[in-house]
Amino acid sequence: MTADPAAGYPADLLELAETYLQQLDFRADPRAATLAEAMRYSLLAGGKRIRPVLTLATARSRGADPRAVLPAACALELIHTYSLIHDDLPAIDDDTLRRGRPTCHVAYGEDVAILAGDGLFAEAFRLLLTCQQGEPEPVLAAVTEISRATGVQGMVGGQYMDIAGAAADDDDLRTLHALKTGRLIEAAVVCGALLTGADDVASYRAYAAELGLLFQIVDDILDETGAAAELGKSVGKDRAQDKVTYVSRFGMERAAQLADQAEARARHLLRSLPGSAPDLLAVTAYIHRRRR
Amino acid sequence: MTADPAAGYPADLLELAETYLQQLDFRADPRAATLAEAMRYSLLAGGKRIRPVLTLATARSRGADPRAVLPAACALELIHTYSLIHDDLPAIDDDTLRRGRPTCHVAYGEDVAILAGDGLFAEAFRLLLTCQQGEPEPVLAAVTEISRATGVQGMVGGQYMDIAGAAADDDDLRTLHALKTGRLIEAAVVCGALLTGADDVASYRAYAAELGLLFQIVDDILDETGAAAELGKSVGKDRAQDKVTYVSRFGMERAAQLADQAEARARHLLRSLPGSAPDLLAVTAYIHRRRR
Repeated sequence: MTADPAAGYPADLLELAETYLQQLDFRADPRAATLAEAMRYSLLAGGKRIRPVLTLATARSRGADPRAVLPAACALELIHTYSLIHDDLPAIDDDTLRRGRPTCHVAYGEDVAILAGDGLFAEAFRLLLTCQQGEPEPVLAAVTEISRATGVQGMVGGQYMDIAGAAADDDDLRTLHALKTGRLIEAAVVCGALLTGADDVASYRAYAAELGLLFQIVDDILDETGAAAELGKSVGKDRAQDKVTYVSRFGMERAAQLADQAEARARHLLRSLPGSAPDLLAVTAYIHRRRR
Repeated sequence: MTADPAAGYPADLLELAETYLQQLDFRADPRAATLAEAMRYSLLAGGKRIRPVLTLATARSRGADPRAVLPAACALELIHTYSLIHDDLPAIDDDTLRRGRPTCHVAYGEDVAILAGDGLFAEAFRLLLTCQQGEPEPVLAAVTEISRATGVQGMVGGQYMDIAGAAADDDDLRTLHALKTGRLIEAAVVCGALLTGADDVASYRAYAAELGLLFQIVDDILDETGAAAELGKSVGKDRAQDKVTYVSRFGMERAAQLADQAEARARHLLRSLPGSAPDLLAVTAYIHRRRR
C-alpha cells in the first residue's frame, strides 16, 4: 500500500481557498443567473486548488496571514478554471469529462461555456482589483504579473502552441508547457511574494518554474498511467491526439527520472527562500506524488 | 446627397489610436506567431475606433495630452475586438463577415479564434498595466473600471442575456444592451476621466450611458436598413435570429425618435462636463449619423 499522496498537503490553506471560492456568486443580474451557475459549476468541481494554495503558502512562508492574499489567490483559480473550460471546447481538445463531471459545454452548451470562460477571466481581475487589500503598488504588481502570465507570452501562447502541434524538439516542449501551465503556477507563487512585500521575486520565480515543470511531467505520466475514474478526466488523450509529451519523447522511465530531478531542484531552490516553508515543501511533494 | 456622417469626427485622435494599434505586435514567441497574426487580423480591420477615440477625446476635453492615455484607450479596442471574435463564433452568432472581411474563425479556424479572443483580453490588461503612465491609484482605478465593465455585471453578462433571449420586456432590452455594449463605451469615457485626475466621474458616466444607448438604437436600425457592403457585416441577422431589438419592439419610426432623444440627452449631459468638448460632441453626432 502506497502512502496517501496528499499527506502533509496544507489542509487549512485548501479549506481557506475552498470556502472563499464557494461564497463567490458573481452577483449577476437574475437574467444572467445561468451564466453565473455555469461559472460556479466548473469552478466548484473540487480539486486540490494548487494555485491558490501556492499563493497562500508563499504568504505564510513570509510570516504573513494567508487570509490577507485570498482574493489574489482565488483569482488564479478562476483563471485556471477559465482556461480548462476553453481547452475542453469541441473546437480545441473536445473533452467531455473534467474533474469527474461533464465538462462545462456538455452541461450548459458551447455558447454558454465560451462566455463562462470569458466571465471567469474578467471576474478574476475584478476580484483581485476590488477585494485585495494592500498598497496600490503591490496590488498593481500582482495584477500585472497575472496579465503577463495569461497573455500570448504566457498561458494563451502555450495553448496555441499546443493546438498547433508546435512542439518539434525538446526546447519547444519545454517552452510550450512553461507557457501553458508553468506561467500561471509561477504567477501564483510570485503574487504571494509580491503582496507580502518581497522586493526581489526572482528566487520565488525560479522555484516556481521548477514546480511548473514538475507539474507537467507528472501530468504527462498520469495521462498514460492514470485511471479515468481516479483522474477525473479522459486519459490517453495525449497519445490519441498525437501530442508530444514528456512520456512520448523520453519514455516512461526517463520521464519519471526527470520528475525526480525537477522536484530535487525545486526543493533546493526552496531552501534559498527567506523564512520557513513547510507548506511549500508539502505542495511540492504532492505535485510529484499525486495520482490525478 | 446627404452629408458625410464622419464630418467633424476627430481625425487626429483616430489616427493616434490607429497608429498605436498598428505597432502592437504582442511580441509572441515565433512558434505562436500565427496566434498573434490572427489577433492583429481582427484588431486591424479598420473602423472608427469609437472606444479609444472616446478615451482620447475625454482626456483632451480635460486639457490633457491625449497621447498620455493611449495605452488605456487602445486596451479598450483590444477588448472590443475580443468580444466581436467570440460573438462571431459558430456556437454564438455564427457570423462569417465582419468589417467587410471573413471573421476570425473563418480565416484562422475556430480553435485559433477562441484563443485569439482570449489573448486579446489578456493583452489588453497587460498593455494598460505595463504601458500606461501615471500614479498607481488612477491606473488601478482604470483597470478596475475595465474589469467591472467586462465581467458578468458588464459585457459578458449582456452577451449571455443576448444568447439566452432574455429580453422579454423594455427593461430587459435596456439592461441587455447597457451591459453588452453600453458598459464598455462607458468605461472608455470613464477611463479618460480617471487617468486625467477626475475626482468625480459620475457626470462622465451619465453622459457615456446615453451614448451607449444611442449606439445600440442606431445599431438596431442599421441592422434593418444597412447594406451589407456598407455595413461590413451580415445584415438582417437580428430579425433572422428573432432577436428583440429597438426596431422590432418600437418600429422604425419610434426607434429613430428614441435615437434623437438619446443624442439630445447626451449633448445636454456633455454641457455639464468641465472644459470644452468639441471632440466628444463630434463623436456623439457620428454615433447617431453613422451608416455602419
